[in-house]
Amino acid sequence: MKTISSRHNPLFQRVRDAMRDPEDEFVLEGHKQVDDAMAAGWQPLLLVTRGETFTDELFDALADTRTPQDVLGLFARPKGQKIVANNGPVVVLDAVQDPGNVGTIIRLAAAFDCGGVILLPGCADPFAPKAIRASVGAVLRVPVVQGTLADLDGLPIFAADAAGQTIDPPTKDAMIVFGNEGSGVSDEIRRRAKLIAIPMSKRVESLNVAASAAILLARSYVLRGK
Amino acid sequence: MKTISSRHNPLFQRVRDAMRDPEDEFVLEGHKQVDDAMAAGWQPLLLVTRGETFTDELFDALADTRTPQDVLGLFARPKGQKIVANNGPVVVLDAVQDPGNVGTIIRLAAAFDCGGVILLPGCADPFAPKAIRASVGAVLRVPVVQGTLADLDGLPIFAADAAGQTIDPPTKDAMIVFGNEGSGVSDEIRRRAKLIAIPMSKRVESLNVAASAAILLARSYVLRGK
Repeated sequence: MKTISSRHNPLFQRVRDAMRDPEDEFVLEGHKQVDDAMAAGWQPLLLVTRGETFTDELFDALADTRTPQDVLGLFARPKGQKIVANNGPVVVLDAVQDPGNVGTIIRLAAAFDCGGVILLPGCADPFAPKAIRASVGAVLRVPVVQGTLADLDGLPIFAADAAGQTIDPPTKDAMIVFGNEGSGVSDEIRRRAKLIAIPMSKRVESLNVAASAAILLARSYVLRGK
Repeated sequence: MKTISSRHNPLFQRVRDAMRDPEDEFVLEGHKQVDDAMAAGWQPLLLVTRGETFTDELFDALADTRTPQDVLGLFARPKGQKIVANNGPVVVLDAVQDPGNVGTIIRLAAAFDCGGVILLPGCADPFAPKAIRASVGAVLRVPVVQGTLADLDGLPIFAADAAGQTIDPPTKDAMIVFGNEGSGVSDEIRRRAKLIAIPMSKRVESLNVAASAAILLARSYVLRGK
């Protein structure tokens, strides 16, 4: 195949669009992420190599990171993933807007064997490049679905909230909600959920949402006896 | 005082330099951060108000964030801060390069009553705007000093490392080291420290350094019985 050098080439535009605004397709950057995804059973639709598929200059025009890679993988966005609550708790994100936080919490959900991640409206796209980089590919190792409050029916709901009680997090068969960076969980969730506070000093008012998720999900994993 | 409109004005240049490359002075952005610092006993050298001290246009040229503030405080960088190890553990950062991670871990050190934070060479500046924003001003609520390995003498050293044992973190009178985002702690620290691993599944290889710090420092705080 001839090395593509034009920004008008449809293949270049397809990859660029999947990076900028991932819809049915998204991009993983670098050998490590692409290899990890393939090891987890995901086949790329297309592998793009610097200097081969695209000229160096065209490839570099795509790179989203400051430490450029020399390979990109174009993948189909997973569909029909199933959340399973009888292993670990299900993580629910309520308007978590920063893609780095969404990606970091997905990585934590995988690390601590959660049943999956439900993204309520207002969350950043977990397949945006910044989220993918923060998840270090974990978005392909734990079910991640878009959902609404109606999906919460049936399981007990817990939520991280500084106004809650300092109790242990649920170990399984439960939802645990983490809220927006500025305003926390929504009023509706605050009414319906059992609120869990993390014991801490009064020197700070609150923790970053990803730090709260790290602490509660790690604790849930240990309490489950894993 | 006349509202300053020129980029050549020395006061403008002083504030701009303190934001770009903080040396003896650094900048806090927004009423909340400035008020918190003043409540903690720090007096600003200068308060800069949008439309008063500087024209709107000049002020906006300074703003580092996407959610612009209307006040900036210029502060002197703290000097001669003392680390105290007999309350909580002392946090040591080894070449943690991302200012967001440095700021987040400083916030965690304050939240979980650590004795202070020692930054070994290679760490991001805790007074860079991105670090300040991540610390949410906590950099003024916990002692933060630049240091070297020699400062580690005397106290037992623990370090977060996936190759370590899954043991509890120290509660006080100890150092706990968190390493570089890519390569972890240095070989020298790895040899000298007791390595602590965080129990987790094999679905991910490692955690983000700020997530590891959140988990171990929160646990240390609970074990201290606070």
